[in-house]
Amino acid sequence: MTPRERTDVRRLPEKQVRDVATLHAILDEALQAAVGFQVDGQPFVLPMACARDGGSLLLHGSTGSRLMRVLATGAPVCVSVTHLDGLVYARSAFESSMRYRSATVLGTATLVADEEKLHALEVLTEHLLPGRWAELRAPRARELAATTVLRVPLDEWSVKVGDGFPDDPDEDLDEPVWAGVVPMRVAYDDPVDAPDLGPDRPVPPHVLAVTSGDGS
Amino acid sequence: MTPRERTDVRRLPEKQVRDVATLHAILDEALQAAVGFQVDGQPFVLPMACARDGGSLLLHGSTGSRLMRVLATGAPVCVSVTHLDGLVYARSAFESSMRYRSATVLGTATLVADEEKLHALEVLTEHLLPGRWAELRAPRARELAATTVLRVPLDEWSVKVGDGFPDDPDEDLDEPVWAGVVPMRVAYDDPVDAPDLGPDRPVPPHVLAVTSGDGS
Repeated sequence: MTPRERTDVRRLPEKQVRDVATLHAILDEALQAAVGFQVDGQPFVLPMACARDGGSLLLHGSTGSRLMRVLATGAPVCVSVTHLDGLVYARSAFESSMRYRSATVLGTATLVADEEKLHALEVLTEHLLPGRWAELRAPRARELAATTVLRVPLDEWSVKVGDGFPDDPDEDLDEPVWAGVVPMRVAYDDPVDAPDLGPDRPVPPHVLAVTSGDGS
Repeated sequence: MTPRERTDVRRLPEKQVRDVATLHAILDEALQAAVGFQVDGQPFVLPMACARDGGSLLLHGSTGSRLMRVLATGAPVCVSVTHLDGLVYARSAFESSMRYRSATVLGTATLVADEEKLHALEVLTEHLLPGRWAELRAPRARELAATTVLRVPLDEWSVKVGDGFPDDPDEDLDEPVWAGVVPMRVAYDDPVDAPDLGPDRPVPPHVLAVTSGDGS
């Protein structure tokens, strides 16, 4: 569970974080990951919903998707998750940057077997929509058959965190400009009923918890 | 400026959008992109700041970064931008999804020449920190030398938008659960001064405009 040479951070190595708790926290806050694979030397990157399941990351998609078919053959994959946490206004364009937390996982995906698929879909659903799984009907056999779930082990990874203030050189500190950070976050607005929602279907507490969870 | 075969959307093709204005809008809202490349068959995906400059996308990074060196050789690249706009609560796990807007650009990057670099950095800075460029000192020669800027033409791309409500089959409409959408957005909080900020350096209006721009 330690980063290896090819995942060592080369740029701004002081921003590399090596503890697995930070990796897990970054992944656990992510609803989607950028998943990279290559076909005949052409890289492709596609966004996919993701959820951590212990020491691995679950991805799911349609059984018919090219990405799923390529990855299920054991092709190398790179999964990238990034959270932007703020705009960093330095005294120069050169030092201006962003606050961010990013995780990169290299590895090979394996197909989640049929007998594990229900568990994997529960983990994914509960990660994306916490509290929802228990109130939904069970998946139908044809829905399970139409869904591919992949598991990527969290064996080879790197994490980079930029969480500070502008790091201007001394010679720039007297520049006549403001310097600081504008924090960013994801906010959730009030739930909107589906147009075809029937009567007596109130918004459940777990949905209200998502909406109020951003502190705004 | 039209998508080609290898960028055609294969899954949920009804979500593919082919007009360039939507592509531009998605890119113009993005502060970072997931940039994919491959080395010896291993895909890598790294987050990078990005900005559209007319019919191309600018990326910048350190002259010493591996990504920059690989891409500057004319290696194939894939740039992916995704905005999550909401959680879609359907009546089944299978139909549950997210609202999103995603753009994928395939191509080859070219190095921005020295004489264009200042323009490119202005475009990047003004995209990420609107209004900031004019109040900053000019970049120093060694800062320009330490920065590589790449340009990826927006020639081959695809856009996918999921902006609707749950699309449950009729047989599920009587399920005894709420269904609907929880909208998501990026919110900006109040600016925080740098700890080493000198006196008489008020937060400029362009920064306050970012903070108030999220409507909260």
